Amino acid sequence: MNEHFRPVALEHASRLINHGPTVLVTSAAGGRRNVMAAAWSMPVEFTPPRIAVVIDKSTLTRELVMASGAFALCLPGAALVDFTHAVGSVSGRDGDKFERHGMAVTQGPVLGMPLIESGCAAWLECRLIPEPHTETAYDTCFAEVVAAAADTRIFANGHWLVNDDNQDLHTLHHLGGGNFARAGGVIRAKST
Amino acid sequence: MNEHFRPVALEHASRLINHGPTVLVTSAAGGRRNVMAAAWSMPVEFTPPRIAVVIDKSTLTRELVMASGAFALCLPGAALVDFTHAVGSVSGRDGDKFERHGMAVTQGPVLGMPLIESGCAAWLECRLIPEPHTETAYDTCFAEVVAAAADTRIFANGHWLVNDDNQDLHTLHHLGGGNFARAGGVIRAKST
Repeated sequence: MNEHFRPVALEHASRLINHGPTVLVTSAAGGRRNVMAAAWSMPVEFTPPRIAVVIDKSTLTRELVMASGAFALCLPGAALVDFTHAVGSVSGRDGDKFERHGMAVTQGPVLGMPLIESGCAAWLECRLIPEPHTETAYDTCFAEVVAAAADTRIFANGHWLVNDDNQDLHTLHHLGGGNFARAGGVIRAKST
Repeated sequence: MNEHFRPVALEHASRLINHGPTVLVTSAAGGRRNVMAAAWSMPVEFTPPRIAVVIDKSTLTRELVMASGAFALCLPGAALVDFTHAVGSVSGRDGDKFERHGMAVTQGPVLGMPLIESGCAAWLECRLIPEPHTETAYDTCFAEVVAAAADTRIFANGHWLVNDDNQDLHTLHHLGGGNFARAGGVIRAKST
């Protein structure tokens, strides 16, 4: 549990991944659980809040997602950069990655997915929308967001609050090869 | 034309949008052309390089993409923040947005799409892969990247070169409401 987390209204859920952060996909089914990093996700609809994420068909995560029909996206802050890279490089078939890294989990309120709050900026609990063709052809899984929450030190009242004082919670954006940009340096466009 | 642009090998094309930048979707068909901002895009495959982008069915861009079977994604640098927000707020049905903003275009080498190089970090010319169901249900268009290029001051030899000296070319990541984070502050994860 992270005392700073508060629920995010579902109509604001798409904003959590609107800016393209690398996410941690968490999953559980039949007594097993897993976490992997994924750079490829995006919202596809505001209301109802729907997202798409690419989960390779060879992964344990994909197996668990197909078994449970559910997963969560957790947004690692900059302080979790090593954890994020590590869980994107090793398979959950080689042992429980939460345990290996001593990572505490809480249980998702709607679907019971394992959620990481410590070091994360936000999470979205998602119910898979079965789309066999796109899952097979593009490893692209569509899902509806059924619950979301964020650390109020960086996202509150439906808005990101990115500043120099919360750099550890700035989202990570994978440039490749273990190099991540942080989303900082906010600029405001002129009104049109 | 931008003298700093060089072709990007297709096997590296996914890296251009791996970190979730807001993109400009450019399109042309039947003597009309358009540009709109889109926050929702992602790679879905490395080889062949394939991407997905959400293009609302009500937009002129969607009409042109369906007519030509092609579009391009241009990655605006931070210096184009006002242009990016403006072309995300106004419809191309109300007049040519390139002309209104005095934006020069070059022609895509494979599909002839209008490309923006001035102020952009990179572009990807894309051939639509018709997927009527996902286009209708999720406004999600799949496509194969057939040509790509980048400004070598920020992307060269298949790698992003983000530093304090090229901030005007840092990609934009839309937080909502005209506020954009820039992808900067690169951190390197420990090897695992």
